[in-house]
Amino acid sequence: MRIILDGMGGDNAPGAIVEGAIEASKEIGDEIIIIGNEDLIKKSLKKLGYGGNRITVVNAAEVITNDESPVRAVRRKKDSSIVVGMNMLKNGEGDVFISAGSTGGLLAGGLFILGRIEGIDRPAIGAVYPVIGSKPSLLVDTGANAECKPKNLLDFGIMGSIYMEKVLGRRNPRVGLVNNGTEAHKGTTLTKEAYSLLSGSKLNFIGNVETRDLQDSVCDVIVTDGFTGNIIVKLTEGMGLMVLRELKSRFLENIKSKLGALLLKNQLKEIKKEFDYIEYGGAPILGVKGAVLKMHGSSNGRAVKQTILKALPYVEENVIGTIEKFVREYGSDDDK
Amino acid sequence: MRIILDGMGGDNAPGAIVEGAIEASKEIGDEIIIIGNEDLIKKSLKKLGYGGNRITVVNAAEVITNDESPVRAVRRKKDSSIVVGMNMLKNGEGDVFISAGSTGGLLAGGLFILGRIEGIDRPAIGAVYPVIGSKPSLLVDTGANAECKPKNLLDFGIMGSIYMEKVLGRRNPRVGLVNNGTEAHKGTTLTKEAYSLLSGSKLNFIGNVETRDLQDSVCDVIVTDGFTGNIIVKLTEGMGLMVLRELKSRFLENIKSKLGALLLKNQLKEIKKEFDYIEYGGAPILGVKGAVLKMHGSSNGRAVKQTILKALPYVEENVIGTIEKFVREYGSDDDK
Repeated sequence: MRIILDGMGGDNAPGAIVEGAIEASKEIGDEIIIIGNEDLIKKSLKKLGYGGNRITVVNAAEVITNDESPVRAVRRKKDSSIVVGMNMLKNGEGDVFISAGSTGGLLAGGLFILGRIEGIDRPAIGAVYPVIGSKPSLLVDTGANAECKPKNLLDFGIMGSIYMEKVLGRRNPRVGLVNNGTEAHKGTTLTKEAYSLLSGSKLNFIGNVETRDLQDSVCDVIVTDGFTGNIIVKLTEGMGLMVLRELKSRFLENIKSKLGALLLKNQLKEIKKEFDYIEYGGAPILGVKGAVLKMHGSSNGRAVKQTILKALPYVEENVIGTIEKFVREYGSDDDK
Repeated sequence: MRIILDGMGGDNAPGAIVEGAIEASKEIGDEIIIIGNEDLIKKSLKKLGYGGNRITVVNAAEVITNDESPVRAVRRKKDSSIVVGMNMLKNGEGDVFISAGSTGGLLAGGLFILGRIEGIDRPAIGAVYPVIGSKPSLLVDTGANAECKPKNLLDFGIMGSIYMEKVLGRRNPRVGLVNNGTEAHKGTTLTKEAYSLLSGSKLNFIGNVETRDLQDSVCDVIVTDGFTGNIIVKLTEGMGLMVLRELKSRFLENIKSKLGALLLKNQLKEIKKEFDYIEYGGAPILGVKGAVLKMHGSSNGRAVKQTILKALPYVEENVIGTIEKFVREYGSDDDK
């Protein structure tokens, strides 16, 4: 397999990207191609003492930033790392494209260069959703589509379900629809119609789920529009950070509490780890005709390495082909 | 002041309601009228040893449950505690109505019996939103209106702002609009238009807020549609419960951690209290022509007492009149 890495995306590029590539190449035998400023990347490889031949560099002179219009950037910056990488993926010069760069750039690049999977109207971002004390869920959509139609939510369920099964190894994943109540008649026009589409699908749809129960592992695939998905992911992150901060501040109150915290050091470390997204690899951009993984902008070397490792089953298990086949066979009615 | 209490609403009625009334009457000199099954309530008063004369009982033979259609229930059950209480409020036989009963019943009762404040299209529920380690915010709407128009969100901002200032004592409260990004151009059609209305208002509007920052006290009044509000409140609740559960289970792992937890007993208790809504009293049903407070269905005596105490400024500070005046003076354009 050939893994294409965006060497210029994210806050720590290219250092963290190169580091992650080197670490991953110690565990897997696949070829890794890093796209970007050749000089910088080669310097980074040298600095980190890389002497192998499975990591190669392809030059790209431009970078798409978070501040520019993604659509215009993808159209104009033909020599940007994202456009070059996507084109290589499209032309079969690689099997998966991984980037910590602009989410908008990746979505636009995916749409214009790779194109949509037939039958899928709107690509979506699937994020691994951490569940405290348990295995994570997958949340689709995390923010690609602020406004959705019922059919989009059905597609999110299909794509999320297949990704969850193939890449994260969860058999027959339970699909839940985020709603303001569990009863079928609850919700907005959007959720009511999506409920009916999901109920009639071949998915293991368990019905509406309330956000109160997300941390109770109520389902494996959490389906929602990109606005609500964004609200959920950011609130979960914010709550986690604040609870940890509050614990820390309370535990430093006096000598007695400091001693208590010292005795609980291992446990507190474990809890902190629960909030850590790194273990699960990047977020798939689902619905485009190619395996694309988006990493967090602040990814460090370890996060990059983990994402590279997760990219293997994404390709080997033929997630894209499976989605295409599912949609072809069981549809996803285009009139809806 | 005369406080009207729904004696039949909630899981612990009438016991907890009566208990809360008795406890409150020890602190305030106001009259409390409990509506409901007279025999049951009088027995409860007797059982708890009440011998005063500031708590009276008004009989109501029916109860509106959570399982029935609120609109139909309010129309048919004329002798239910909610309908009797709302009618008394309307007729000036009391100054505020407090209930732990059906939210739908209270909303429908508010609309049909009390009517809307002129210029306010949709009443909303304002919930005190707990912020860990800091003063709470007020979130409007928590679930009365799953689908909203931009003008509704402006009204939520106005009503929330006035309630926050008058009842919770926060001067010149900062109003934030929940969105998927802080930039003005971000969001859905709804949030973009609401942003523009709020920007042009007399409120202390600070712009869009992301849910990641809600626990950072980014604003005092959190404005959002009832669907998103429901998602936020329930996720916050679920996260809080799971974190506490996880802490508890980790801290019981071995003797060393148990000892650590023992030393941190006070701190853990304080953290648990942070998630406690009880201190702040019930949720106001804003936008109806009367002071109505909804309590949590599981309210105990202490929660009932706290809500009664919060009802005083709600009435004394003339929240309803202030909202009417604000809308009359600064409008809230009805065409939008």
